Amino acid sequence: MQPDVRGIVGVLGGMGPAATIDFMNKVLRATPAECDQQHVPMVVSSIPQVPDRTEAFRGEGASPLDAMLASGQRLADAGAQLIVMPCNTAHLWFDELQRAIGLPMLHLVEAAIGEAVAVAGAGAKLGLLATDATLASGLYVNRGAASVRWLLPTAAETLELVMPGIADVKAGRLEAGAERLLQAAQALQRRGAEVLVLGCTEIPLVLDAANAPLPVIDATGALARRAVAWSLAQRGSLHD
Amino acid sequence: MQPDVRGIVGVLGGMGPAATIDFMNKVLRATPAECDQQHVPMVVSSIPQVPDRTEAFRGEGASPLDAMLASGQRLADAGAQLIVMPCNTAHLWFDELQRAIGLPMLHLVEAAIGEAVAVAGAGAKLGLLATDATLASGLYVNRGAASVRWLLPTAAETLELVMPGIADVKAGRLEAGAERLLQAAQALQRRGAEVLVLGCTEIPLVLDAANAPLPVIDATGALARRAVAWSLAQRGSLHD
Repeated sequence: MQPDVRGIVGVLGGMGPAATIDFMNKVLRATPAECDQQHVPMVVSSIPQVPDRTEAFRGEGASPLDAMLASGQRLADAGAQLIVMPCNTAHLWFDELQRAIGLPMLHLVEAAIGEAVAVAGAGAKLGLLATDATLASGLYVNRGAASVRWLLPTAAETLELVMPGIADVKAGRLEAGAERLLQAAQALQRRGAEVLVLGCTEIPLVLDAANAPLPVIDATGALARRAVAWSLAQRGSLHD
Repeated sequence: MQPDVRGIVGVLGGMGPAATIDFMNKVLRATPAECDQQHVPMVVSSIPQVPDRTEAFRGEGASPLDAMLASGQRLADAGAQLIVMPCNTAHLWFDELQRAIGLPMLHLVEAAIGEAVAVAGAGAKLGLLATDATLASGLYVNRGAASVRWLLPTAAETLELVMPGIADVKAGRLEAGAERLLQAAQALQRRGAEVLVLGCTEIPLVLDAANAPLPVIDATGALARRAVAWSLAQRGSLHD
C-alpha cells in the first residue's frame, strides 16, 4: 500500500477556518501527484473556538494558549508527526506550544521571510501587512536578517484598513476585505515598498499576484511548500 | 470561552484530498458566522494513502477498509463526536466503519438523495454521475425512494468520460476533467435527465450550477449542510 511513504503533517488550524482551508489547498498545489495516494497525508484540527489572538496580545481578551494546546494535543493523539500553524499571530505562542507538544514544528514567519529574501534580494524594502499584534510584537521585524528593511502600516492604517479588512475576510465579506487591504498595500507602495509580505493568513484569501500592486510573498504558501518538502523527505512508516 | 458551543465534526477525508477541502469550504459557507469563534469545529484526517475504492470494488486492488478504520480511529482519538466521509464510493464500507468506530455518522448518499427529491419533486428523472463502483454497487439506486427514477451513464461513457474525468480532477487537470464530465452530463440530458446528481466528490470541483446543462445536486454540499445543522444542534461541552 505505501511504497511511497510520506510524513503526516498536523495542521493546528481554525485561526481562522478559511485560512486553514487555504493552507490545505496550497499543500495540494505544491505536491507533485497524479493520484490520491501520492498526496501529503494531513491531520487537521480546525477548532475556531480559540480566543482571538490579537485581543489577547493587547491584554483585552483571554489567552489562546490553553485552546491551542488542546488543539495541538488532538493532533498528537491523531498521529501527527509535525505541527504547522497557518496563523501568523498564533506564532506569538510558538515556543510554549513547541515545548508542551513535543513534536517538531515549522515556523510560518521564518518560511515567509526566507521566501521574501530569496525573491526581493538583499536590501529590498519589504512592506508588511499583518495584524496589530503581529506588528506590535515584532514577530516579523525581530526575525529578519540584518539586510532586510521593513515598512509597516501606520497606526491609523492598521485600525482603519488592515484590521477591518481581516475581519471582513473572517466574516465572508471578501470584496470589502479586498478593497481595504488593497488600500493598505497601496499606502506601503507609496512609501517605497518593493515587495509585499502578506503576514496574516486571511490576507492572501483576497490579495494575490493578480490584484496586488506589488509582488507578494504569501506566508501561507511559503509554509505549505516547507511542509510538503518535509513530508516527502520522511522515510518512516505511516502506520507504525 | 464557549457560550456558543458546537459539536466537533470529524472528517474522514483524503479520498481525494481536494474533495476534503471542498467539503470543508462548503461547511464554512453553510455556517452563519461573523467571526472565527462562530464557525463549526472540525477535526480532519486527510490521509490519501487509502487504496483506491473503485479498484477494490472491482476486485482489482486491496480493500481500503483497514486504512479507513485507521483514519477513523485518528478522528476518534482527536475528539471527533461525529464522522462524515466526503467520498461517495467509500460509503460501500459505511456499515463496517460505523460498527467499528462507534461514533454517529452522517450518510453522504442519503443527504444527496434527500436534496434531490426536495429539488426535483416526485417522479423526476435524476441523472447520476458517479464512479464505476458507485454505479455498479447500486449505492444510489438501491437507496432511493420508490418515486425516484434514475438515468445512469452507459458503460462506454463510464469508461471513456466519467472515470477519466475524475482521474483528471485528482491529478489537478481541471479543464480536461470538466470537459469530459460535461460530455457525460450532456449524454444524460439527451436521454431525459431533468436534474444531475453529482455522486462523486471530485465532480463538483469542476461541474456546478454555472456550467452544468441541468440543475445539479451536489452531494458534498448536501453532506456539509447536514453536518453544520448537527454541529449547531449540539449542547455538550467541547472540552469534556
